[in-house]
Amino acid sequence: MSFDPVDLTAALIRCPSVTPEEGGALSLLQTTLEGAGFHCVRVDRNGTPNLFARWGEKGAARTLGFNGHTDVVPVGDAAAWTHEPFGGEISDGILWGRGATDMKSGVAAFVAAACDYATQNQPDDTAIIITITGDEEGDATDGTVALLDYMTEAGEAMSDCIVGEPTCPNTMGEMMKIGRRGSITAYFVARGVQGHVAYPNQTRNPVPALARLMAELSTHTLDQGTAHFDPSNLEVTTFDVGNPATNVVPAQAVATVNIRFNDAHTGASLSEWIRAKAARMAEETGIDIEVRFQISGESFLTPPGRFVDLVAGAVEKVTGQKPVFSTSGGTSDARFIKNHCPVVEFGLVGKTMHKVDEHVEIAHIEDLKRVYSCLIGDYFS
Amino acid sequence: MSFDPVDLTAALIRCPSVTPEEGGALSLLQTTLEGAGFHCVRVDRNGTPNLFARWGEKGAARTLGFNGHTDVVPVGDAAAWTHEPFGGEISDGILWGRGATDMKSGVAAFVAAACDYATQNQPDDTAIIITITGDEEGDATDGTVALLDYMTEAGEAMSDCIVGEPTCPNTMGEMMKIGRRGSITAYFVARGVQGHVAYPNQTRNPVPALARLMAELSTHTLDQGTAHFDPSNLEVTTFDVGNPATNVVPAQAVATVNIRFNDAHTGASLSEWIRAKAARMAEETGIDIEVRFQISGESFLTPPGRFVDLVAGAVEKVTGQKPVFSTSGGTSDARFIKNHCPVVEFGLVGKTMHKVDEHVEIAHIEDLKRVYSCLIGDYFS
Ligand SMILES: [Zn+2]
Ligand SMILES: [Zn+2]
Repeated sequence: MSFDPVDLTAALIRCPSVTPEEGGALSLLQTTLEGAGFHCVRVDRNGTPNLFARWGEKGAARTLGFNGHTDVVPVGDAAAWTHEPFGGEISDGILWGRGATDMKSGVAAFVAAACDYATQNQPDDTAIIITITGDEEGDATDGTVALLDYMTEAGEAMSDCIVGEPTCPNTMGEMMKIGRRGSITAYFVARGVQGHVAYPNQTRNPVPALARLMAELSTHTLDQGTAHFDPSNLEVTTFDVGNPATNVVPAQAVATVNIRFNDAHTGASLSEWIRAKAARMAEETGIDIEVRFQISGESFLTPPGRFVDLVAGAVEKVTGQKPVFSTSGGTSDARFIKNHCPVVEFGLVGKTMHKVDEHVEIAHIEDLKRVYSCLIGDYFS
Repeated sequence: MSFDPVDLTAALIRCPSVTPEEGGALSLLQTTLEGAGFHCVRVDRNGTPNLFARWGEKGAARTLGFNGHTDVVPVGDAAAWTHEPFGGEISDGILWGRGATDMKSGVAAFVAAACDYATQNQPDDTAIIITITGDEEGDATDGTVALLDYMTEAGEAMSDCIVGEPTCPNTMGEMMKIGRRGSITAYFVARGVQGHVAYPNQTRNPVPALARLMAELSTHTLDQGTAHFDPSNLEVTTFDVGNPATNVVPAQAVATVNIRFNDAHTGASLSEWIRAKAARMAEETGIDIEVRFQISGESFLTPPGRFVDLVAGAVEKVTGQKPVFSTSGGTSDARFIKNHCPVVEFGLVGKTMHKVDEHVEIAHIEDLKRVYSCLIGDYFS
């Protein structure tokens, strides 16, 4: 018995699962997985649909995890699509539709690979756990986090996990992710004393103090990069005063800074650095500078070793390419999973994700299933 | 015959002449001045009411000018006033109402002094020119400027001019203005390339470049002050991006800077300085920085000499105080008059101007009339 990942991707594309709509996508997967012998549980939380599935015994010594999402970003300019976004049309070897690369194809590929294995093998202190969320593209509060919370409560655990997000910039197999940078956002409020520009002694302008602080932060070199990471990067994303009167010194100015940081830093170390810089500027200028932080995720790394090598080996066997071990790009749900087990990411070429006319080569979907099948086989051998 | 400046101030306060309303104020003054032998012309332009008045012959060798305004700022929180804003009530030696200090009392004082002189003397190659506008508090485009334009066309000229704006911070007679700082506003637009914070190589953030430029400009010492002027002062009045997305590098940032500058600078020299700073930052950062300028007025000075000494002498004779020669504060219509003749400013204590419960001591109005009478006598003696 062999499960077809292309048919499954097309069927998933026909489920209009724009975040946070389930759109029939998880039901379809549940039916497929149960048909292959998986034990399935819907783990919905606060309206977010999620699916947990396990083949093999709970607590098996070697439990390989797969994670993905079926929700998709909105269609955008519908008139600009040359193919029906939720049609799942195939022509000339290309499958079209929203979610074709991000990441209904990835989900279909690992579900097909896992179902093949489950229907052809008996568990031998081995298990496959599949977690699929309906909210990765939204705020992700009740998505993979809810699945992991459920697993902790239910005594379910993965030994290692692979996330099926697109990871290849241009050609199939060229890159996998073995970690991600962390992300911290700092929100600044600088308060002075309002007044007329002609009487500067009766005012205290908060704008220069905040501008100087932003200048200092943004010209500082955080690091030169580390063994597996690009240099950390700081961006001032906004700076706002909103004072239309050119003869008035404003009372307040706000700014926001986002840092994508590598393993040379932590959310705590960066908070401390920023807090000290702000305090020194406040002292120097007499301007009150308040700052609060939001840490979206710490950086993490699954260092090259047995699991990373197994994945890389499977990729190379199928595609003939040795994948680069990358930690670049934005965040993904791997940032939650890394607190539970080693996690890496490998998937398709992501070029058209989130764009009009999102599409995927069907040969890539078949290759991706082959990579996952190869990984499952090697993992349990 | 003696004209009562207190009655006249009260009558003017009862004219609700909030900019740009005439409110009956200029008509009242015209009647009064014509009664004392003044030749009067209404010089209204684009809906702004203005009054020109002359006693004596056009082209007289010694022509003393007085300038003021009858328009007032709005009442503001009417419920907070303890006296009717347009009532002109007098109690316990205090006259209450909008315009009581800024500057219906000043106008009443010089009109009363001029009418006294005109009714008691014959011109002897001497003249008094009074220009009163109904728009000093607004944008002043068609106020004193229209009066000066009219005078140029009509061949009218002043030898010297005194503006009756409030000039004393706390006690009557302590300060006169012999100049004013200039004012220039610079509007900056910094343009970069928008994108996702996780891919900094594909973006160019304009915020740090603009923040660094604002930091540089605001920490630069323009000068240490000059003989008659305080140090020039630069304020960043606003800085705006308006980007709510903490994962997006914005495409554009804007900022505004206002400089109040002394006679060590000109609008042109400051524009050049700012343009050079912006160009250097643009070059250093690769961010396009555009800047445009608005020069509201150049600085000016009527150096101590015969006219300044005459005014100071009159102030001292009446109040017993030697007035400080100041160039501080905001702009006034003197910035227009200085292109036509030497101009100084002397008037009341301005503490309650533009505030709720604006009021004036009637003794101060009487003193102010005495100062102006003394000045007229000395000027023509
Ligand atoms: Zn995705
Ligand atoms: Zn005024």
